[in-house]
Amino acid sequence: MNYRQIIAVDAMGGDFGPSVVIAGVASAQERLADTRFLLFGDQAKIQVELDKFEGLKPHTEIHHTDKAISSHEKPSSAVRNSKDTSMRLAIEAVRDGTADAVVSAGNTGALMALSKMILKCLPGINRPAIASVMPTYKDQCVMLDMGANLACDAEVLTQFAVLGAVYARVVQGITKPTVGLLNVGTEDMKGHEELRSAASVLSSIEFPGEYHGFIEGDDITKGTVDVVVTDGFTGNVALKTAEGVGKLSKVYLTEAFKSSPLAMLGYFLARGAIKRMKDRVDPRKYNGGMFLGVNGVCVKSHGGSDVLGTENAIMVAAGLVTNGFNQRVAAQIEELMEQETFMSVVGM
Amino acid sequence: MNYRQIIAVDAMGGDFGPSVVIAGVASAQERLADTRFLLFGDQAKIQVELDKFEGLKPHTEIHHTDKAISSHEKPSSAVRNSKDTSMRLAIEAVRDGTADAVVSAGNTGALMALSKMILKCLPGINRPAIASVMPTYKDQCVMLDMGANLACDAEVLTQFAVLGAVYARVVQGITKPTVGLLNVGTEDMKGHEELRSAASVLSSIEFPGEYHGFIEGDDITKGTVDVVVTDGFTGNVALKTAEGVGKLSKVYLTEAFKSSPLAMLGYFLARGAIKRMKDRVDPRKYNGGMFLGVNGVCVKSHGGSDVLGTENAIMVAAGLVTNGFNQRVAAQIEELMEQETFMSVVGM
Repeated sequence: MNYRQIIAVDAMGGDFGPSVVIAGVASAQERLADTRFLLFGDQAKIQVELDKFEGLKPHTEIHHTDKAISSHEKPSSAVRNSKDTSMRLAIEAVRDGTADAVVSAGNTGALMALSKMILKCLPGINRPAIASVMPTYKDQCVMLDMGANLACDAEVLTQFAVLGAVYARVVQGITKPTVGLLNVGTEDMKGHEELRSAASVLSSIEFPGEYHGFIEGDDITKGTVDVVVTDGFTGNVALKTAEGVGKLSKVYLTEAFKSSPLAMLGYFLARGAIKRMKDRVDPRKYNGGMFLGVNGVCVKSHGGSDVLGTENAIMVAAGLVTNGFNQRVAAQIEELMEQETFMSVVGM
Repeated sequence: MNYRQIIAVDAMGGDFGPSVVIAGVASAQERLADTRFLLFGDQAKIQVELDKFEGLKPHTEIHHTDKAISSHEKPSSAVRNSKDTSMRLAIEAVRDGTADAVVSAGNTGALMALSKMILKCLPGINRPAIASVMPTYKDQCVMLDMGANLACDAEVLTQFAVLGAVYARVVQGITKPTVGLLNVGTEDMKGHEELRSAASVLSSIEFPGEYHGFIEGDDITKGTVDVVVTDGFTGNVALKTAEGVGKLSKVYLTEAFKSSPLAMLGYFLARGAIKRMKDRVDPRKYNGGMFLGVNGVCVKSHGGSDVLGTENAIMVAAGLVTNGFNQRVAAQIEELMEQETFMSVVGM
């Protein structure tokens, strides 16, 4: 069989290891009929899980290793001891061209460090970002950085804007995506110096998006812009706060429906609609942190992901491969580097 | 009549001015029978609104001025031109002892700058914080700073921890409130240097709370701690992101109930329970940013507040006055300053 794409999977990553990862691969494979999966990890453990999915088997290839990186290991020591681990071997498969993308639910810091070390950055990019898709009133937006770079200067923020805009254009098909810088107010004088410099660069350069200006936290879900740019500290806190509020709303809603027999009957009648509503904000549907700026497709699945979450992370990786994201980002950046304004300010 | 407390209100603050502010005062007054209100602003405009609330009238006193600070003015210029504005006169009433607290929905930056300038900080506090109450699975927590100080060093974060802990103890009645530092992970090595130093100070001093450790964004609503400490940039983004997600959930829920006749019937039956659920997360119920660390009670109402939001901000101010918050913070800080560890690290 001729495969359109090959995805390397770190089968040992995440809180549950192969039992969840393989089931997630099986679900994704049903939606990605022309995809081959290279499964890195403990042969015996993977085989047990694989035996449950006869349909998946012919599309997989197990690459045995008994070494794995722990989620709790410090990234620097994880990298030092990464030789022959399932995560590292999966990344190396992308470097060697035997796979088009890698997906792991393992240690985020180690995955980012190893990706940068093994795959390198795209030309012109100093620091890759973790990008996530977030739900909005209108549809969805892409937000970066979600935690790879805690502090970011104007140059890095500008690169994130470019990466996010190319993503929105290439993968989401938005011709001229709007880009906002996350701040504490929309007025020009607001925020850190880094944000104000990034704003001035983005206002003066030609890039694949349209600079909207500063936005505030509630603009993320309002869908004010297609691309939300922020430093990794703020992005990580905002993402997790959003997840927390989403869960709180669900808990409160469940309590409300349980509060009286009439409310329970109401729930019974509306349950289909409520389930669809919960599905729309289900964080598992938004699982899959994309490492934008790395020279290769690398997607981080949440450590606590279940089957649906894993499936989604694989779909995200497949989307980046299918749309030729990296090639198009690279071309876009090359074009940008020919702009004098861009080079003089961003200095890539 | 003998009043237990007197609250100065900037009647010209907020997007709607006296029409909303006076109605909010009227609602609060029904719950605070022993409170007198000094209303600062345009006599004629206030009188028109006051005429709608006969019950409120005898408990108010109008202090006329035709000057007001605009919401869009830069704080520095607002402060320069603040003489005889409704906001400044209301703050001065607290300084002069003619009022116990001030409430304004006006320009946040100007309100903070004028409060610090006119009321000064409590002894030992360098930079006051804006604190807000947030809903959690369990009940609620207090979070600071919500935007007064964009960047905070370890010393300032430690002071916020003390202010938040005293608030939780004095106003919320929690004997030993737990305090968490908002970060991108819970491990000791995570985050900025400032956070790690603040963590080491909080682990070694005796203060009115119990230091829990680092927490993540989703811990806010989980109720992991009673007091969430963060810098003003992160706090502001997290608060507004949380508001945005809350509104998104409401929009999705409404759409779900409208999606079929059966779902509409379900809504009809469960509407009482759903209304109670929406009330629990209603941001207006959490309106009222407290300026902790200022030597006087000052509460910021959201600029876009309606009557319920304004009422709540006044209730927050009354709660701080009734519980003698400032006196008790001052005593607590004096005690802390006698601790050698505290002084050597925090250096207040």
